Amino acid sequence: MTDVPDYGKTFALWRAGAGTTWQGYTCHGFVEGLADGRLPQKAFLHYLVQDYVFLVHFSRAWALGVVKSETLGEMKTCATTVDALVNHEMSLHVSTCAAASISEEALFAAAEEVENLAYTRYVLDAGVSGDFLDLMAALAPCVFGYGEIGARLAKTAAPDTPYGEWISTYGGPDYQDVCRTVGAMIDGAVQRRLGAEPADAARWPQLQVRFTRATALEVGFWDMGLRGA
Amino acid sequence: MTDVPDYGKTFALWRAGAGTTWQGYTCHGFVEGLADGRLPQKAFLHYLVQDYVFLVHFSRAWALGVVKSETLGEMKTCATTVDALVNHEMSLHVSTCAAASISEEALFAAAEEVENLAYTRYVLDAGVSGDFLDLMAALAPCVFGYGEIGARLAKTAAPDTPYGEWISTYGGPDYQDVCRTVGAMIDGAVQRRLGAEPADAARWPQLQVRFTRATALEVGFWDMGLRGA
Amino acid sequence: MTDVPDYGKTFALWRAGAGTTWQGYTCHGFVEGLADGRLPQKAFLHYLVQDYVFLVHFSRAWALGVVKSETLGEMKTCATTVDALVNHEMSLHVSTCAAASISEEALFAAAEEVENLAYTRYVLDAGVSGDFLDLMAALAPCVFGYGEIGARLAKTAAPDTPYGEWISTYGGPDYQDVCRTVGAMIDGAVQRRLGAEPADAARWPQLQVRFTRATALEVGFWDMGLRGA
Amino acid sequence: MTDVPDYGKTFALWRAGAGTTWQGYTCHGFVEGLADGRLPQKAFLHYLVQDYVFLVHFSRAWALGVVKSETLGEMKTCATTVDALVNHEMSLHVSTCAAASISEEALFAAAEEVENLAYTRYVLDAGVSGDFLDLMAALAPCVFGYGEIGARLAKTAAPDTPYGEWISTYGGPDYQDVCRTVGAMIDGAVQRRLGAEPADAARWPQLQVRFTRATALEVGFWDMGLRGA
Repeated sequence: MTDVPDYGKTFALWRAGAGTTWQGYTCHGFVEGLADGRLPQKAFLHYLVQDYVFLVHFSRAWALGVVKSETLGEMKTCATTVDALVNHEMSLHVSTCAAASISEEALFAAAEEVENLAYTRYVLDAGVSGDFLDLMAALAPCVFGYGEIGARLAKTAAPDTPYGEWISTYGGPDYQDVCRTVGAMIDGAVQRRLGAEPADAARWPQLQVRFTRATALEVGFWDMGLRGA
Repeated sequence: MTDVPDYGKTFALWRAGAGTTWQGYTCHGFVEGLADGRLPQKAFLHYLVQDYVFLVHFSRAWALGVVKSETLGEMKTCATTVDALVNHEMSLHVSTCAAASISEEALFAAAEEVENLAYTRYVLDAGVSGDFLDLMAALAPCVFGYGEIGARLAKTAAPDTPYGEWISTYGGPDYQDVCRTVGAMIDGAVQRRLGAEPADAARWPQLQVRFTRATALEVGFWDMGLRGA
Repeated sequence: MTDVPDYGKTFALWRAGAGTTWQGYTCHGFVEGLADGRLPQKAFLHYLVQDYVFLVHFSRAWALGVVKSETLGEMKTCATTVDALVNHEMSLHVSTCAAASISEEALFAAAEEVENLAYTRYVLDAGVSGDFLDLMAALAPCVFGYGEIGARLAKTAAPDTPYGEWISTYGGPDYQDVCRTVGAMIDGAVQRRLGAEPADAARWPQLQVRFTRATALEVGFWDMGLRGA
Repeated sequence: MTDVPDYGKTFALWRAGAGTTWQGYTCHGFVEGLADGRLPQKAFLHYLVQDYVFLVHFSRAWALGVVKSETLGEMKTCATTVDALVNHEMSLHVSTCAAASISEEALFAAAEEVENLAYTRYVLDAGVSGDFLDLMAALAPCVFGYGEIGARLAKTAAPDTPYGEWISTYGGPDYQDVCRTVGAMIDGAVQRRLGAEPADAARWPQLQVRFTRATALEVGFWDMGLRGA
């Protein structure tokens, strides 16, 4: 499909291995609502508050990636990602929510819904119970899925959708660069640990399970967003 | 060599891969002193106090094995090992030390020497930074080395060595059973993650590094013991 | 209330601090269905399969307690609990499910529902992000709540409820002993770290948040059970 | 003493609590050799190679700080520190070592000496076994000690010492700012968890043990450096 951005070999394999769960995530009704602008603002704000808390724990999981790195390159990519998330990406949420009179303290203290809790703690536990690859397989659907959605919506979204800033954040060149950098790092990490034909490795099915599971948890996250409407 | 007990395929590979470091550990002067009885009692007690603290952290590392297990069998073997260490093996140290007027509270509070600290925290960090196999590769030299030493000394030690209880603990059938059970569990864990030819896997050299490193840290531990004389 | 068993000071404080969330958990419709026998068997089996997977991760969390212990007593209680869970308590589930033609392999491989995933990973992350007390506060509602429910139902359940074995497991003397042992250990752990007046400590509200959150996740677990009917 | 920089209340308490171990670290022969220029270059390079590997694991420990943070401020300070270490501070080592024909790959792969291994893994395990404060108490001696040494040597070192770049790195305004920022963050973290009078808290002696232990491990690190001469 021409719409699929190139974020590396590993992502292409994992994406294919997730089957229709991947489309269930990237073409979810919430996403289509961002594109055509019909997503209720209440649902969007509900999502945004939850996503802020998500990013807190997602940043913790990327920091765990630094703890579990085996090469300097892996460390640098993970450290840069943590810094980008904590010191920059969360600002989008803060400013958008501030415009809706939701303070950053309120964001940080927001009660996590069960779908949110389940997702981030699953990712963290993938790192605690497994190795760097287990963690990356669980982190990947969010990073790359938002990249793929952003890239598609940047081309296809209704010009008057009120969600243009969200779309340009993830469809824009900075975030697309992040996806390519992370994708290349993961390709190297996979080759280092599983060799040149990773899909033949004994551990591969287990990594696919993690990727697919995290993808399914993204579907639950969008469901939760719609429920906020 | 006829003296090498059979604790499974993985141990045989790791042992061979460690080269002369393995003999530096299992045939160390401290060990020979246990066998011929010439090890000064002061060195033995110094070792025993440090080994008690070692077992505290070694038990923590086996407990981390429960956290990182992927199968029920792995969980059960690790849980049983923790229970055996915490509720039984440490008793040998406690009773021997009690006979030398060292209380269990004194043992638990003993200041770790740097070789001791380095070893156990290296093992724990192998588990934190890697996966179940990384942890097992770092745990293996202690488990299997003591089994090999015990089995050899049970046959060859001077009949009048004062260290007969130590020798019969590790050379006796209970501990030899532990070695075979752990060896079989590790063989299964390796096959599950690396396939039928684990030594061909891309990760194998890294696992060997961990095993060899932990073996070298055992050498340092005996050195520390002798220093206590 | 005369029905509240004595599992120590800390539990009494945490239980009171959880307010009505505690009754929402211990007097949930699922529990009342166990007592009067009206719980559909399908709901019970659905719960039992999920609870088996729950116990896998709950055991991992208790093993993390060994990793995070500061005293030998804490280590021993946690190690004994892991051993009891992995080598004994899970057997109740296995035999009951076997009678319903569900194999242990099927249990171990069962897909976790989101409420289950959220709960156990929240507990594990309490241990990863915090210290021994953070972990204990998140483990406590399950241990003590089942004890309280079991003790109450042992006295009040309909004599012909088909769930007598479940009730006698948790209401029986062995499990009640576990609750008192764990309760005493937690009291000691709290005193060691927070002093004689723990509820005055700066950290106390945070520990209460963890206990209450885990209690709310128990409510979600029963809800999930009923949904299986 | 006028030479003691102000890095916050907690540091002042911990520093005093460490007694003469603190001076054993900050006024070590290695440090005096940096000041008067008499430190053999071979010892300095030996130290620098080991310190590079130290920083790899020290960065991992700061990343663990992100995982264990409870506030956004804690997360930001830890994330910024990881980024500074991984993407900047290690560059000093790389460029200095490159001038001595030691490549960054050689640095990353350098075999850790036992004092180095013991120190960094002790710090990491402080975080794994304890909470955010346990980790900070173990991280603090390196951060603040280098600041204090740098500040003192910037005023007192021989003008012709060949180690001027090291001194200006740690004595310069950027690093002194880091010390004040980290010190303020730790003060806040301590107050949040232990209240306004932290030294009265039940946990305080345990935190002091960690700080003092890590300080003693710094002494061992300098010893190791001198041994390289």
